[in-house]
Amino acid sequence: MNTTMRLFEKHKATLDAAIKALTERTYFSPYPESPKAYAEDADAKAKFWMSSTMNNNFQGLNNEHANAWLGEEVSPFLQVGIGVQYPAFSVETLINNAQDAQSAWSKTSIDDRTGVLIECLDQLKSRFFDIAYATMHTTGQAFMMSFQASGPHASDRALEAVAMGYRELKSVPEQVDWIKPMGKFDLKIHKTWIPQPKGISLVIGCSTFPIWNTVPGVFAALITGNACIIKPHPKAVLPIAIVVEELQKSLAAAGFNPKTIQLAVDKSAEPITKLLAEHKAVKMIDYTGSSEFGNYIESLPKTTFTEKAGVNSIILDSVTDLKPVLGNIAFSASLYSGQMCTAPQNIFVSKHGVQTSEGIVAYEDVVKGIADAITGLIDNPKAGPGTLGAIQSEATHKRVQEAKNLGGTLILDSKPIKNEEFADARIASPVVIELDKTQSDIFNRECFGPIVFIIKTDGVEDSLALAKKLVQEKGALTCGAYTTDETTITRIAEEMNSAFVPVSFNFTGAGFINSHAAFSDFHLTGGNPAGNASFANSEFVSKRFVWVGNRYM
Amino acid sequence: MNTTMRLFEKHKATLDAAIKALTERTYFSPYPESPKAYAEDADAKAKFWMSSTMNNNFQGLNNEHANAWLGEEVSPFLQVGIGVQYPAFSVETLINNAQDAQSAWSKTSIDDRTGVLIECLDQLKSRFFDIAYATMHTTGQAFMMSFQASGPHASDRALEAVAMGYRELKSVPEQVDWIKPMGKFDLKIHKTWIPQPKGISLVIGCSTFPIWNTVPGVFAALITGNACIIKPHPKAVLPIAIVVEELQKSLAAAGFNPKTIQLAVDKSAEPITKLLAEHKAVKMIDYTGSSEFGNYIESLPKTTFTEKAGVNSIILDSVTDLKPVLGNIAFSASLYSGQMCTAPQNIFVSKHGVQTSEGIVAYEDVVKGIADAITGLIDNPKAGPGTLGAIQSEATHKRVQEAKNLGGTLILDSKPIKNEEFADARIASPVVIELDKTQSDIFNRECFGPIVFIIKTDGVEDSLALAKKLVQEKGALTCGAYTTDETTITRIAEEMNSAFVPVSFNFTGAGFINSHAAFSDFHLTGGNPAGNASFANSEFVSKRFVWVGNRYM
Repeated sequence: MNTTMRLFEKHKATLDAAIKALTERTYFSPYPESPKAYAEDADAKAKFWMSSTMNNNFQGLNNEHANAWLGEEVSPFLQVGIGVQYPAFSVETLINNAQDAQSAWSKTSIDDRTGVLIECLDQLKSRFFDIAYATMHTTGQAFMMSFQASGPHASDRALEAVAMGYRELKSVPEQVDWIKPMGKFDLKIHKTWIPQPKGISLVIGCSTFPIWNTVPGVFAALITGNACIIKPHPKAVLPIAIVVEELQKSLAAAGFNPKTIQLAVDKSAEPITKLLAEHKAVKMIDYTGSSEFGNYIESLPKTTFTEKAGVNSIILDSVTDLKPVLGNIAFSASLYSGQMCTAPQNIFVSKHGVQTSEGIVAYEDVVKGIADAITGLIDNPKAGPGTLGAIQSEATHKRVQEAKNLGGTLILDSKPIKNEEFADARIASPVVIELDKTQSDIFNRECFGPIVFIIKTDGVEDSLALAKKLVQEKGALTCGAYTTDETTITRIAEEMNSAFVPVSFNFTGAGFINSHAAFSDFHLTGGNPAGNASFANSEFVSKRFVWVGNRYM
Repeated sequence: MNTTMRLFEKHKATLDAAIKALTERTYFSPYPESPKAYAEDADAKAKFWMSSTMNNNFQGLNNEHANAWLGEEVSPFLQVGIGVQYPAFSVETLINNAQDAQSAWSKTSIDDRTGVLIECLDQLKSRFFDIAYATMHTTGQAFMMSFQASGPHASDRALEAVAMGYRELKSVPEQVDWIKPMGKFDLKIHKTWIPQPKGISLVIGCSTFPIWNTVPGVFAALITGNACIIKPHPKAVLPIAIVVEELQKSLAAAGFNPKTIQLAVDKSAEPITKLLAEHKAVKMIDYTGSSEFGNYIESLPKTTFTEKAGVNSIILDSVTDLKPVLGNIAFSASLYSGQMCTAPQNIFVSKHGVQTSEGIVAYEDVVKGIADAITGLIDNPKAGPGTLGAIQSEATHKRVQEAKNLGGTLILDSKPIKNEEFADARIASPVVIELDKTQSDIFNRECFGPIVFIIKTDGVEDSLALAKKLVQEKGALTCGAYTTDETTITRIAEEMNSAFVPVSFNFTGAGFINSHAAFSDFHLTGGNPAGNASFANSEFVSKRFVWVGNRYM
């Protein structure tokens, strides 16, 4: 048994469990989300690794034929450059390397690809703490989110793509003897099928979730036999550089060309994204980022998978107990300072208030309640800083500071929150603005960051109509709804689902609309303007290869 | 048990057998392809039906709100107009009807849709002879092809789409209780998923295969919950009009809105295709026809499934026995006068001739052999007329007559063949032209109709390179190859497959490269310029709906 076959056998149980989970959509995660599940000294080692990596050339990547060393990352917690430089390559070098790698990788068996890719994920666990600190000091996520989102949760999504790919790639047999009875004789034809990879994959990363949003496309491209080039956001390279380092090591250890996966670093002032995207050898593009650039990517005559901007709504109608609801909304809006693609921005509340088991709570009291719940969370020194993290970019920080001038009534202004560990952190708590339903020019667009609009409507039907229109026009990744009325639940589900957005009903406690679990929740539906991809439906892998069948007489 | 549930139970065995077949890619057809398998008086009744239908208004379709009666079909066998007029509707009427129908159909359960759609196909069997004559007198196909391609083989493809749809629609559960262990407690979320239909489907038919190329898209759209509008080619309406009549009857009988499927007839001089295609309510388009219009369809911001022009090649290298090979090629090139999308146009032969078990046959003798085999077939009064059928359009007929002026050496000129039954039939036998490999300006494009180029190359590697380049530039649906050398088989397969075209090796006897069998052969790969669709891979159905999941606490 050769090395790669051993890897397939080694990881067969994980693969089977992953396929079972995504088929049944049940809870599954082979990578523990608690930092405590890993080596005791891992945190200390990672802190040391981080400090020795800063202000140095990144050594984990092959730098043969590099034409420059680039790096411009700034830690949102320190507000100083982290000083890491990465080897940069010409577009032609990247493409040539990818083409070389593709020719062997595309002929590698599905089982062998599966084995080595799950092995890569297995090896990656040893870097989860390094990845956590790298994520903190590029995205501004607090430690726990950095650890979970870039580590175990991202690897869950990567494994999901591998498992979905494996299932699709095995959905047509390798061969069959086809026999057609023709009356006096049988027509016998031997048939074979191969899932022919489409060609080089480009995955364009974003600055807020440089691993979580990148690895699904990377592993989907790799499992389907395509070499992959990752073009990270120039402000969030380090986390994904570690991933590429580990993938290259695992590929090489199993006898494959490490350049099957490459990192394409560039400068904000001199981007190479369009050069790569438009290169004729690049056949598929995964993208996370602004709608404007996403629309350009979708316009290219290639296979594209996009996640663009969206505006998420909460419809607040009726509840049993208001307090846990307000707490849940406050947390969803504050988590990573509203910089999640799944963070709620617009909260639609009836002017008649919210029905509770103890009677109606007046509209004004609901507005105040939301603000108070946010204040209670962010002012709690044990919870606030760890929930908010830091603001990734200066542009977002500026947007938050200026939000009070957008119009409407300022209910709660953004303020800096003290982070005991990082005195210079760029922090801004959520700003809460009350709007009338007629002020759609303000709330009918994405205001990325911790900006919350409470919109006064004529009732739940009005709230629903406004939220639905917003999804149809601007897209959304998620929608929250609070109602105790069964008919209203059905109505909201039908209306919002018809606009291709999922709804989370009556979330309290540990359930947050922000969270999309791998193997169960589709991240994006792919059906509204927020993007054309979905992690990971069957298309997310099947569009990356072509079934070709030969026939033999 | 209600009617539709009974229909699902009635057809469950057929559904299961269809899913099994398309999973294993084995031979399967629930609709017998032999006319003898049907009622004894069916042929006579159909002849009577055809003569009473000609020169009349077509009565099988609802004509409420029709704004005109249109019809301009000409029988290629009679070369006179068949005089059938069909009710025509405004684009707005068609769209409004479709929207009405969609709202109920999209909420119909997957099982109920499946039951009634297979019932439709069951009922359609009673019209196979009517369909055969309607197909003859619009497309020019001879009786047997008209019967098989428009009847049982088309229904096989329709059932294949239903079965593939059913499998995909059931690939995610309707609901699950998702339970995540959180240490001290479990996080429990109830989740549901629906496959939300994208919206109105438009299927644009072609003049040569008005049913076979239309019903896969129609049934794929319907099984996934989308109302469908068929825009037939104005010169080939009658066959698909019968299908729509029967579908509407079966839908109505089961209590559904018959306008879930509609026929949108127009005039060549006043086409409505673009108006329908660009209508914002139309979300998906299936198209068969020219590359120019197909490229326009693909450029629309919609879900599209196209089959465009392609150039199919045969690589003739080495054989055991040349005679059956030449006979097979002659038949493939002559069947329906080369008007099949899978007909071979370019035959690449080495200047060094063809190796056989009895020694090398010189290139010149191979060229003569191909011409002789065609002459032998078409001059046989029992085989010729039934193989050739008639030429569908005057444009194709003209192209064939003028082919000898394209350049190259005329090996065999096209000639009229006598059809005992139809003295006025528009018939043209294949023209065979010999070209040098340098004359790619002539052979490197589709010359639709019975036009065969034999291209003299420097050897099998040269033949392969030319054939591959052609696929990459112009696309192809199929490729034939004759070689007794295992290494060459592997090489041709790898090279042509890398250009996303399938290869049929060493076909003789009853195996023809023209034939693509439902449940087993993918018709098109979707990966080369001949089209972006494939009948019926998982994408052919999954791109027609969106998974949307709701979560409940």
